[in-house]
Amino acid sequence: MKFSIRPARAQDCRDIERMITELSVYEKMPGQVKISYKELERDGFGPNPFYQCLVAEVPQEHISTEGHSVVGYVLYFYTYSTWRGRCVYMEDLYVMPDFRGKGIGKALMASVAKVCSEQQCARLQLSVLDWNKPSLDFYFSKGAQDLTDTEGWHFLRFDGEALENLALEAP
Amino acid sequence: MKFSIRPARAQDCRDIERMITELSVYEKMPGQVKISYKELERDGFGPNPFYQCLVAEVPQEHISTEGHSVVGYVLYFYTYSTWRGRCVYMEDLYVMPDFRGKGIGKALMASVAKVCSEQQCARLQLSVLDWNKPSLDFYFSKGAQDLTDTEGWHFLRFDGEALENLALEAP
Repeated sequence: MKFSIRPARAQDCRDIERMITELSVYEKMPGQVKISYKELERDGFGPNPFYQCLVAEVPQEHISTEGHSVVGYVLYFYTYSTWRGRCVYMEDLYVMPDFRGKGIGKALMASVAKVCSEQQCARLQLSVLDWNKPSLDFYFSKGAQDLTDTEGWHFLRFDGEALENLALEAP
Repeated sequence: MKFSIRPARAQDCRDIERMITELSVYEKMPGQVKISYKELERDGFGPNPFYQCLVAEVPQEHISTEGHSVVGYVLYFYTYSTWRGRCVYMEDLYVMPDFRGKGIGKALMASVAKVCSEQQCARLQLSVLDWNKPSLDFYFSKGAQDLTDTEGWHFLRFDGEALENLALEAP
């Protein structure tokens, strides 16, 4: 199947919102999505974007049964390691179920790796749920290291009331 | 002890480099630091900074035995959740050993939480090594959740040859 990978445009945000929701269902956490295409437009397509996004598009003869031509996306942003400098974090990588097994996910991810190389980013990082064996196998087959297993890194979060209370302690 | 928290300036980068190295020794991974104050200056103080940094400074009468007045730092950057929008990731939080127990770490961290609130960031996130009990206790006491334990998130990384090979697969 022919497909192309291209940078997302503001008008893709409805498609991206749709696929974010589909991914949250796959991750067994539907109802967690609190943002819409409007925030995606504001945060990704202003002068200082908070994220970057590439989409996978198929030609008219291959569109989905619901009529979608944008069938996958990868959303990433720049981070910083105080040991290694510039890095990239891949927040989401998603391909619609009917379009899997055609190399689209690999092409999206490889395109982000190419961005790393072009922008002198030493690392490409991501988080995966431990029960998500297909994704883990895919990433390991490409040479990813699991730093939670090998070094013991745990991922912590403050939000809601805990975050508000912490802010109140600022001098 | 009196201290102040302020945004880092480019001329603080030698102090930041010094403390990054001290922190890597505490984390039992010395030799991992591959960046110097020059990259810190370039990446943090240009038109599109890759990171943000606050430092803790003590007045002349409290400087360290080696003569340092900048005795702690917190380095963070903006990230993006496709469920919740803008977030902040705290990469490093460090206070020199002789200056611990005086509320400096808490003040640095609370100042970042305040940034979250001002910038409408829904989450403050960070990673901690599982053997680093003092830090984990500190974060948990402030209401942090361990998402590796509760949801099973593992932290993956591509770097070096794996990242180069991946980039070569880009269409």
